Amino acid sequence: MKLGIVIFPSKKIQDFANSYRKRYDPNYTLIPPHLTLKSAFKATEEEIKQLTATLDKISNHFQPFQIKSTKISSFKPVNNVIYLKIEESEELNGLQKEINEKISEEVLEYAFVPHITVGQKLSNDEHSDVYGSLSLNQFNYEDTVDRFHLLYQLDNGSWTVYETFRLGRD
Amino acid sequence: MKLGIVIFPSKKIQDFANSYRKRYDPNYTLIPPHLTLKSAFKATEEEIKQLTATLDKISNHFQPFQIKSTKISSFKPVNNVIYLKIEESEELNGLQKEINEKISEEVLEYAFVPHITVGQKLSNDEHSDVYGSLSLNQFNYEDTVDRFHLLYQLDNGSWTVYETFRLGRD
Repeated sequence: MKLGIVIFPSKKIQDFANSYRKRYDPNYTLIPPHLTLKSAFKATEEEIKQLTATLDKISNHFQPFQIKSTKISSFKPVNNVIYLKIEESEELNGLQKEINEKISEEVLEYAFVPHITVGQKLSNDEHSDVYGSLSLNQFNYEDTVDRFHLLYQLDNGSWTVYETFRLGRD
Repeated sequence: MKLGIVIFPSKKIQDFANSYRKRYDPNYTLIPPHLTLKSAFKATEEEIKQLTATLDKISNHFQPFQIKSTKISSFKPVNNVIYLKIEESEELNGLQKEINEKISEEVLEYAFVPHITVGQKLSNDEHSDVYGSLSLNQFNYEDTVDRFHLLYQLDNGSWTVYETFRLGRD
């Protein structure tokens, strides 16, 4: 089974992201707008039990925290991905780090760039158009993160939430 | 905000349901296959906090339980909805009843018919074709329900999970 770990931002940010994803993100119908903490990885049904216990423990190490966004950015030239950039913070980085360290021993290949994708798999022309018009604007969003979610992927590529982990319950 | 409360069945049942939903359910991309415990209702952001506390308490009153399905059924002539019929059980009915009683004072207009929709908004001809071929088969599924989910609806009609409630934690 393929799993993933994400934060779903508030409805307001999701509605904003979807207004672009609808046209510019082929994954629009497969998953709601999200901030990825750990991208797709494989686990057996048995491993999931252990995993949820681990994530439950991690969620107790963190208190709810704020995230902020001020602008649109892009992974081009690596990838034609346009995203709402989320400012790094000690808490967000700490949460992402602990999740990745505790549930896999892989060394992360890339630095963590917190983001909410609004467009991907764009042609170079599309990318220029969309990024050109979006990058001129300010996108001031603030949101409280008080939970994250473990998801699994169905055969059709869509994602279902398996469990929610609330921060700072203790 | 519009909320709903559902059970997501196992990946196996979801993949089965999606193989039909893909063609026969216009909501295919808006929500994964599910068993509705409470259909869409409105709540303010403030009310959601109280609501999650209530659902948390309810989830402690129930132990994980089994659900069984043996066949496809239909709500026709009331509605051209084809569904995987879930057998009634004391636990499932009890959970549905407590949720509906505790979070709204409305008297339920309809009896609870536990089901997982595989097709809806079908024309009469489509309904006859699909139901005719599906109703000849047995669909023997068994599944353990150990959680339910509170969801909210985005402006595009899709649903995001707000929180998971695990049964029998105490």
